[in-house]
Amino acid sequence: MIKEIKKISQRVIPRMSRYYRILYEHNGKDMISSKELSDFSGYTAAQVRKDFAYFGQFGCPGRGYNIEGLKGSIRKILGLDRQWNVALIGVGNLGIALLGYKGFKDQGFEITAAFDNDPEKAGRMIKNVEIFSASKMCGVMRQKKIDMVILTVPRESAQAIAMEAVECGAKAVLNFAPINLKLPDAIKVRNIDMSIEIENLSFLISKG
Amino acid sequence: MIKEIKKISQRVIPRMSRYYRILYEHNGKDMISSKELSDFSGYTAAQVRKDFAYFGQFGCPGRGYNIEGLKGSIRKILGLDRQWNVALIGVGNLGIALLGYKGFKDQGFEITAAFDNDPEKAGRMIKNVEIFSASKMCGVMRQKKIDMVILTVPRESAQAIAMEAVECGAKAVLNFAPINLKLPDAIKVRNIDMSIEIENLSFLISKG
Repeated sequence: MIKEIKKISQRVIPRMSRYYRILYEHNGKDMISSKELSDFSGYTAAQVRKDFAYFGQFGCPGRGYNIEGLKGSIRKILGLDRQWNVALIGVGNLGIALLGYKGFKDQGFEITAAFDNDPEKAGRMIKNVEIFSASKMCGVMRQKKIDMVILTVPRESAQAIAMEAVECGAKAVLNFAPINLKLPDAIKVRNIDMSIEIENLSFLISKG
Repeated sequence: MIKEIKKISQRVIPRMSRYYRILYEHNGKDMISSKELSDFSGYTAAQVRKDFAYFGQFGCPGRGYNIEGLKGSIRKILGLDRQWNVALIGVGNLGIALLGYKGFKDQGFEITAAFDNDPEKAGRMIKNVEIFSASKMCGVMRQKKIDMVILTVPRESAQAIAMEAVECGAKAVLNFAPINLKLPDAIKVRNIDMSIEIENLSFLISKG
């Protein structure tokens, strides 16, 4: 199985996440067809079958896929079969919204510490997460064995803070700052840039 | 120019947004090279030159591109040369964070109304945006000539509310609910699914 996983292209991964969510919503059922997965995901049934064939799940003609089996396989592939310790850096409006975001916790992403450079915020609990002074970042991150950080700081400070988080042991960064972070190659980064998405819409409407 | 715009592939658009942001940060300078645009964006210089060639900006060998000229071209392509009237639906934690998100307003996306089905919220002003009862959605959206909506409602209600927004005149939806919306073909949709992004990171770290 491990060998198979290594071969999976990264483009398949967002689709796996989506399938997983759909399977989750079908708890209690035994089987699901590629047609149903296609209807709920918006991908074609052929794409669904191809994606699952990647990791050796072929389904039964006329019956479909075993839901629990699929869920287990996807959990392993996505690394959702364990807990991830996450720290959030930058407790502004967006940061606070994310501290309370159920979608992370439900899949094993546990925000166990948050950091802010505002001394007023340090020591408070927000949405059940303890806020620490940014000056204590390394000590707290090491003690809590943080795997990844969510970066919700202003653009101007994002690069320096991301680099500091990496030096404190973070292996991955979910970056909300509108900037292209320059980090060591081994560090995994995903960017969520809300302005880029909304500009994509204005492009599409203007063109339409 | 319009003919050229029609030909631009949608894959170029997020890159245009990123270049635009970089140009914006170089206000005051006259020229910028493809090498600099490459350094700041993370795309190769060859990619930068190819992207700009799409819309007839070729730069001068040894001098680079005229910053104001480029900015004007990108603004037109992305539809940022006008104001867009935006409504936000679902004034929870994430919704409130987005009401105050400067990145939208700075590029001409003006949130002029927000809706929530909690009667306690209706009538309040949050981050300078008036909150209306969800029952008044169509009237307010038409009166305010809303072009697009930001959807920050729970997954369970997202499909029905998105459909209602479309019936009230929305031409585009920026969807934060983790669901594949089924809307008429003419409606443009962009999804921001934060769980999918973080699961991509856990996949990448697990894979090592």
